Amino acid sequence: MSYDHFFADAVDALRRERRYRTFADVERDATRFPRATWHSPGGPREIVVWCSNDYLGMGSHPAVVEAMRETALRRGAGAGGTRNISGNSHEIVLLERELADLHGKEQGLVFTSGYVSNATGISTIAKLIPDCVVISDELNHNSMIEGVRQGGRQKFIFRHNDLAHLEEILQAVADRPKLIVFESVYSMDGDIAPMAAICDLAERYGAMTYLDEVHAVGMYGPRGGGVAERDGVMDRIDVIEGTLGKAFGVVGGYLTGKRVVMDAVRSYAPGFIFTTALPPAVAAAATASIRHLKASNAERDGQRRQVAKVKAALAAAGLPQMETPTHIVPVMVGDAKACKAASDVLLNEHNIYIQPINYPTVPRGTERLRITPTPFHNDKLIAHLADALNDVWNRLDLPRVRDTGSERRLVAAGAASLAMPTAGG
Amino acid sequence: MSYDHFFADAVDALRRERRYRTFADVERDATRFPRATWHSPGGPREIVVWCSNDYLGMGSHPAVVEAMRETALRRGAGAGGTRNISGNSHEIVLLERELADLHGKEQGLVFTSGYVSNATGISTIAKLIPDCVVISDELNHNSMIEGVRQGGRQKFIFRHNDLAHLEEILQAVADRPKLIVFESVYSMDGDIAPMAAICDLAERYGAMTYLDEVHAVGMYGPRGGGVAERDGVMDRIDVIEGTLGKAFGVVGGYLTGKRVVMDAVRSYAPGFIFTTALPPAVAAAATASIRHLKASNAERDGQRRQVAKVKAALAAAGLPQMETPTHIVPVMVGDAKACKAASDVLLNEHNIYIQPINYPTVPRGTERLRITPTPFHNDKLIAHLADALNDVWNRLDLPRVRDTGSERRLVAAGAASLAMPTAGG
Ligand SMILES: Cc1ncc(COP(=O)(O)O)c(C=O)c1O
Ligand SMILES: Cc1ncc(COP(=O)(O)O)c(C=O)c1O
Repeated sequence: MSYDHFFADAVDALRRERRYRTFADVERDATRFPRATWHSPGGPREIVVWCSNDYLGMGSHPAVVEAMRETALRRGAGAGGTRNISGNSHEIVLLERELADLHGKEQGLVFTSGYVSNATGISTIAKLIPDCVVISDELNHNSMIEGVRQGGRQKFIFRHNDLAHLEEILQAVADRPKLIVFESVYSMDGDIAPMAAICDLAERYGAMTYLDEVHAVGMYGPRGGGVAERDGVMDRIDVIEGTLGKAFGVVGGYLTGKRVVMDAVRSYAPGFIFTTALPPAVAAAATASIRHLKASNAERDGQRRQVAKVKAALAAAGLPQMETPTHIVPVMVGDAKACKAASDVLLNEHNIYIQPINYPTVPRGTERLRITPTPFHNDKLIAHLADALNDVWNRLDLPRVRDTGSERRLVAAGAASLAMPTAGG
Repeated sequence: MSYDHFFADAVDALRRERRYRTFADVERDATRFPRATWHSPGGPREIVVWCSNDYLGMGSHPAVVEAMRETALRRGAGAGGTRNISGNSHEIVLLERELADLHGKEQGLVFTSGYVSNATGISTIAKLIPDCVVISDELNHNSMIEGVRQGGRQKFIFRHNDLAHLEEILQAVADRPKLIVFESVYSMDGDIAPMAAICDLAERYGAMTYLDEVHAVGMYGPRGGGVAERDGVMDRIDVIEGTLGKAFGVVGGYLTGKRVVMDAVRSYAPGFIFTTALPPAVAAAATASIRHLKASNAERDGQRRQVAKVKAALAAAGLPQMETPTHIVPVMVGDAKACKAASDVLLNEHNIYIQPINYPTVPRGTERLRITPTPFHNDKLIAHLADALNDVWNRLDLPRVRDTGSERRLVAAGAASLAMPTAGG
């Protein structure tokens, strides 16, 4: 029996739907972020990356790089074991303290990634609460959906950021233990959850809350504690989850919360227990990054300034951006083939790298270029970006603001991502 | 409604069963491996680690450390995105080529950990094969069990390394597509699968094979390709999985196999798609480690020599080790409380760190100290270890070989780990 055709068929199906992905081979240059070398089929070329989730350029920050280098020298390259069996490095212990402090919680718990923290964290919490109902925003990230699924509890999905619908569900299961699972910044539409109002509902109906701040930590709040810090509701959220791989610029994920909750997850979550711990050098780099962003507003201010300039430049060029209250700037294309073509022309002709975002990451018909300006995208780079996009929109005859209706319409199209559970990859 | 008591109860249950785990806070010293600083309640103390899975000390190898340091300097601390969205670093592309070459396969695919490669890899492969049956060794690691479970296919568990039982199951589902999932070296008992015979059966009954070589890569075979390389059967295994976090000394996991299979997993596995890629510095360190171990036998020879000496020293002292054909040396205690006490005395009185291995990692009644000698555990350290164990066995009046019956009995006790699905954490 040959099995190859099963796999070939699956890949062919993606090609037919124009969903087959090729990865651009990109060599970052820490000394010249956000510039990078693209290993193109025709040879290496210098490009500017406009779609990184290293939102603040902290991956290239000297304090972060130096922490990684110095710790690698002193401690070696890896942790050498699971947390329980010799892998509990002093550096990861310090990192967990730093994270607890960042979110004003008793305890932090580090995982190999934000994906794993959500998948094993949500499922373990749900399993530890007898008869628990899980109530989940419909646009939650794939890792959260996996966590909910693996928890095996009864679940209800509420319409994206829809308080009335959330309350309806809470009322319907008022007498049962319940866990509300949601994000602060949704990464593809760049919108923000009505966090204080969700806390009000959770308190009124006695629900436990689990918040993913993956696209907000480092960037929102006076110390980079996320939108919950900015909105003054950190102490009203039971479990705050985050990543070390986006604004903090390294890799890894974490939960923070009460000591007893973290201790239970630590003791029961298979995705935490049965895996090699993050290297000391990674933990130390993350700690350095968090510490820096607790004390410094320069990166957050710089990001806000350059994001505003990008939004203004795209508006001036009549490009159809979705309005967002965040650092995420989606420019709508609305067609998978056109979106890929726009990305190709940007890269090949303008040395600008913006990965096309197609189904299933966003709903069909809302295909987009997702732009993430950092403090290091200076005014010259922004002018170049606007010119290049303008050229691409002309050449490919893509829809402008006047063709697709108001920006409000675009916002609505994005927010109505009803069947869209898999943002972010 | 307060939720704290659910979590407190769960933790209390572990305490009552003496299964509550505390993690020793350990600071490795790359310049003096396997020595480390233990941050004990009474202050920092120098210890020798005897339970690391950095089996060859490659985490401290200058070429590995330098690759991490140099790449961090040039590329920054993180990848900055998922593989699809700007995180596909040149270093990870090179690492995947290195892995394909290591296992004689067309393509490699890197994940954030071995845990994730198994969980999302096995489940995705099983889902992509219509009507697939998954046939899994009963002692498979938790990450493989998760993969089988998440795949949602009908599954059969065969008795550990039992060819007759495996064949029975293959016969029963002869007309259906089937995936055999097993390990080479089982990490807690240190025994090895009869790999050629499993390949014979797989070919006879037309099954696809998936092999976890996590505890063998780097250490077995002339180039460190694992037991499948040593036994000359690499080309008869469809998918070989491994980790970068044990003998290679870094962190991360991978699959290797035919291009079409890897391309399908790359395109469909959520745990691969929706997560930040490993940092370039981690990928470069892993590549350096693999390359070194492809060319050098010094570490493998050194390990074999010191493992033999440890086994001889323990035998001479009449300590009840399980006989193993591998680098893993389990010393049986047979009781959770005694096992913890032995570990405590070793650490507190002898500055030797060996984590106790209790239920659920091993079956109740087979609690043990699991010793993993590296090439860097020199003769003096071995003599110290044997003396210390002897002292602990006397003081705690633990069973000797003559008390528990023959070593053969001990081997049988280990191999009969019938209900033991969660080795390794
Ligand atoms: C909302 C959200 N949560 C979690 C994750 C996973 O985090 P990580 O990249 O650290 O695995 C992502 C994206 O990667 C995300 O977008
Ligand atoms: C057999 C086996 N497979 C997979 C894993 C997971 O690998 P990693 O530590 O890279 O997550 C482990 C242990 O950690 C293991 O023992």
